[in-house]
Amino acid sequence: MPQLISSKDMDFLLNTVFNAEELCQLPAYQEHDRTTFDSVLTTAERIATDYFLPHNAKADANEPQFDGERVSTIPEVKTAWQHFADSGLLSARHSYEDGGMQLPALVHSACMAYFTAANPSTAGYPFLTMAAANLINAFGNDEQKSRYLPAMFDGRSAGTMALTEPDVGSSLGDLTTKAIPHEDGSYRIKGQKMYISGGDQDITSNIIHLVIARIQGAPQGVKGISLFLVPKFITNEAGEPIQRNDVQLAGLLHKMGYRGTTSTVLSFGEKDDCHGYLIGEAGRGLSYMFKMMNEARIGVGLGAAVIGYRGYMESLDYARNRPQGRRPDEKDPQSKQINIIEHADVRRMLLAQKSYVEGSLALCMLAARLVDEHEAGGDEDSGRLLDLLTPVVKSFPSFYGPRANDLAIQVLGGAGYTREYPVEQCYRDNRLNPIHEGTHGIQSLDLLGRKLWQENGAGQKLLLKRIQKTMHAAGKHSELVELVGVYQKHINTLMQTTLALGSALQSGKLKEGLANSALYLDMMGKCIIAWLWLDMAEKAISTFASSESKEDTDFMAGKIQAARYFILWELPEVEHQAHLLTSFDRTCLDMQDNWF
Amino acid sequence: MPQLISSKDMDFLLNTVFNAEELCQLPAYQEHDRTTFDSVLTTAERIATDYFLPHNAKADANEPQFDGERVSTIPEVKTAWQHFADSGLLSARHSYEDGGMQLPALVHSACMAYFTAANPSTAGYPFLTMAAANLINAFGNDEQKSRYLPAMFDGRSAGTMALTEPDVGSSLGDLTTKAIPHEDGSYRIKGQKMYISGGDQDITSNIIHLVIARIQGAPQGVKGISLFLVPKFITNEAGEPIQRNDVQLAGLLHKMGYRGTTSTVLSFGEKDDCHGYLIGEAGRGLSYMFKMMNEARIGVGLGAAVIGYRGYMESLDYARNRPQGRRPDEKDPQSKQINIIEHADVRRMLLAQKSYVEGSLALCMLAARLVDEHEAGGDEDSGRLLDLLTPVVKSFPSFYGPRANDLAIQVLGGAGYTREYPVEQCYRDNRLNPIHEGTHGIQSLDLLGRKLWQENGAGQKLLLKRIQKTMHAAGKHSELVELVGVYQKHINTLMQTTLALGSALQSGKLKEGLANSALYLDMMGKCIIAWLWLDMAEKAISTFASSESKEDTDFMAGKIQAARYFILWELPEVEHQAHLLTSFDRTCLDMQDNWF
Repeated sequence: MPQLISSKDMDFLLNTVFNAEELCQLPAYQEHDRTTFDSVLTTAERIATDYFLPHNAKADANEPQFDGERVSTIPEVKTAWQHFADSGLLSARHSYEDGGMQLPALVHSACMAYFTAANPSTAGYPFLTMAAANLINAFGNDEQKSRYLPAMFDGRSAGTMALTEPDVGSSLGDLTTKAIPHEDGSYRIKGQKMYISGGDQDITSNIIHLVIARIQGAPQGVKGISLFLVPKFITNEAGEPIQRNDVQLAGLLHKMGYRGTTSTVLSFGEKDDCHGYLIGEAGRGLSYMFKMMNEARIGVGLGAAVIGYRGYMESLDYARNRPQGRRPDEKDPQSKQINIIEHADVRRMLLAQKSYVEGSLALCMLAARLVDEHEAGGDEDSGRLLDLLTPVVKSFPSFYGPRANDLAIQVLGGAGYTREYPVEQCYRDNRLNPIHEGTHGIQSLDLLGRKLWQENGAGQKLLLKRIQKTMHAAGKHSELVELVGVYQKHINTLMQTTLALGSALQSGKLKEGLANSALYLDMMGKCIIAWLWLDMAEKAISTFASSESKEDTDFMAGKIQAARYFILWELPEVEHQAHLLTSFDRTCLDMQDNWF
Repeated sequence: MPQLISSKDMDFLLNTVFNAEELCQLPAYQEHDRTTFDSVLTTAERIATDYFLPHNAKADANEPQFDGERVSTIPEVKTAWQHFADSGLLSARHSYEDGGMQLPALVHSACMAYFTAANPSTAGYPFLTMAAANLINAFGNDEQKSRYLPAMFDGRSAGTMALTEPDVGSSLGDLTTKAIPHEDGSYRIKGQKMYISGGDQDITSNIIHLVIARIQGAPQGVKGISLFLVPKFITNEAGEPIQRNDVQLAGLLHKMGYRGTTSTVLSFGEKDDCHGYLIGEAGRGLSYMFKMMNEARIGVGLGAAVIGYRGYMESLDYARNRPQGRRPDEKDPQSKQINIIEHADVRRMLLAQKSYVEGSLALCMLAARLVDEHEAGGDEDSGRLLDLLTPVVKSFPSFYGPRANDLAIQVLGGAGYTREYPVEQCYRDNRLNPIHEGTHGIQSLDLLGRKLWQENGAGQKLLLKRIQKTMHAAGKHSELVELVGVYQKHINTLMQTTLALGSALQSGKLKEGLANSALYLDMMGKCIIAWLWLDMAEKAISTFASSESKEDTDFMAGKIQAARYFILWELPEVEHQAHLLTSFDRTCLDMQDNWF
């Protein structure tokens, strides 16, 4: 069986490209070293392989059931959850005093990569729980933290994020769930939420929902939104569940993939007795949620990258072992068939996958490192760069990860289309990622309408500085000179395009400037991934060029070739996109409803 | 509920773009007129809507089951099959004397479009049966025709196409199934076939398998392959099943989509008593099969186009009725939300779908018309053009139909990812089409390695002549002048690329010339679809510009805008593809197994 993620590649990313050990210079991480990182990573890979992977297909084929009273999931999910909790990973990012291990986000993301690669559905439960716990930790008061966090750290409670309503998806400002102040200082929540992942299950003894709602009398729009903690079971002060709260599962939704994670419709306050507790200040709910959503967006990007990666590893393994056909210049039908990896078109499909998924994983790990630099290192510039990159971190892997999975199926042919092989499930699972935590459309508006221009474009400048540094380093290697030249041309195009769009937006042409934002998001994504490929190729050469191990030089050659592929085959598409953007093409804007 | 296929669009394609009535000038079709065409089309749409559509999701959720003895499918499939058979469509393409209706391929394809749009899985059974019957009719002897065809025409027997083996997929020349001559003049078949759609079922009382196998002692490679008729039940002279033949269902395969069609592993001759009957001459099996496969390839293209079309209609309907969000320049949170079709990015996703699926449907109907011109009209040039186009007819819709379905999901957002809406099934069903009847890789080699150069490039010249005619006509309309100019540039690029590749191949550089063939296939596809868009826009203007009906002028405006979208947004990507092709880029060719 192929690896979930190439261990050589993970080692390269963590230790060479993103130099995890360097983070140990930060006070928060000073008790760590490469040994502790390796050890937690090994544990994660082992638990993922032993307890998450084996039931991935089974959980897909046996979805959670709801009998009108209770949800039931296959027992393997609970076992996997318990192993995850016992490993300490649920609280690993938190401080020693809170019972955590002060693990850098970079290393923690690397750990999480294994779980999602092994089983995206089951990994969804800890992902959501950690995100919810982070939010409570950041904005909850001491009483809330001490009451709810211990159980979320040791696996007794799970967490959810309850934003969407049946009539409110992307436009969160329009939500209608109400919070009615109660004399005891808490609130009574009333409304319905939809597409809530993990909204009910039989894995944990309690579930902590983080719900956004509007306090009675609060203004319309985003400024009237507050954040509430709504437990499935009301707890005593020690956090032990003592009484069922008035939040009911109205039904399960049935998804194309991610079938092992419940997707729920939840009714809050059908009996007017749903207790909710305000987190932080009233009216700031959405800004709190966005903290969680930004982390969730990195998590979605990472998930999309590694589901893509999993399919790549499976299709590579298949291509290496499946004999079929002969070279175009081989005419003898008696000659031995070649393995399909020898066909140029199969290599194209594998190389494209490699460039998408390894590039995407690098991007997500960069984002995680920026979290560390910003949060543990106090580096505001890293925070600014992270802010700019977040829409791309969410969307590039979510777009190209499924493309990689599509190619993985194609490499397997008819076999790839059957559930007897794992790549079709990857394809279905990964299709969720371009949707949740903000669609591409939303991300592209966030990038082009907001992030690019914050603090006078500070993020842009930081990004360009890093890119220039990479180009300079890469330009010193003869293998990369051509690629640096090609890259230079296209990054210039990106800059000119950004300028043109910025002027239009500044002069108030909002509609025209934003109409083709999806193109800009893709263009920016390609330029960033191509930059990371230059960086990876440069670092591979610097590290391995003089190695005497063939494994090392092969690895290096692969990185160079994937950089070639991405920069020569994919990146140049930005020129056409730039043309449409800078000419403010009106084709989509002018299209009329009646014309369809 | 939205229509399966826009009836105005179907009418436009059939009667304006491809002028079905003109075919009635051919002797074979002279008893038809527009009224008979309309009548058969109305019947097809009605049966598709009443008997195929209602169980589409049910058949997907309730796959055929195999208990080790028998297969069972949900009863609705048999009912639908019976209605299809009773309509006369199974034999509609055949002559009056054979009990058919001498219906043109163009009109028949239009009929079939409704069935696949409604329910691809159930439509698979008649598709396969008609293809098998065509083959028997073309190459079988009189005894075979009179014994087997009547039951295939009235629905008592279904047909299959048994090519693939567990170790033999695309490389058919390597097949190992044996045919041993028997003293009674028939053969005994021995071997295993895989991925045989409809290989067993409980819908018809007999199944006629068309099996390729190697007669004992025949040469290796494709020249040793013969075609056999192998019935599930051996029949008497009247074609009635009298005795079980030695062909057994070894198991069912479980697919991502098309779940309602059985996909089977079949064992022939486990007891050394599988009777098979040679069709035509020994050693010519593959060339016969290719006749059927070419029709099957058009059928696959059509299926991919209309599954894409179905998703488009569903997402258009959703976008028109789902309020969410506001315009970028609307700041008042109290203002009414707009329907999502008003967002430029949603329009982009709908316009892209429209351009892919209406373009693909037009291409398939062009292919069907060429079949009529060639077979009923005896026009050899039409046959040459069809030969050239077939790889594109198979692959463009199969590539862009799923892309359309992907966009349809994206338009619906979270809802689109659930099985509560039909678009996710479209996405899964359509993923088969880039694989079966020859992958893109295979099609691209067929196009670039063979079809382009047949008879000194006669097909190319015919295509260019038609394209020039369209450009000339379109250039007369002010609305299209800009598009004709853009098109001219890109078609020139295609011609130059074709020349460069042709020279390389002629000078023996097979490996280099064919390495990036997938790019060429896509490039050619884009140029052909863009041509059809020019043609459709031109004919829409000619027909509707002076209409006083707003419905007509809206329809015309939509065609012009979709042509704009495809030509300005999608077509220009060929420039970059041409650059890679004409520079004989070696990135994929040079990649090594060990470097992955």
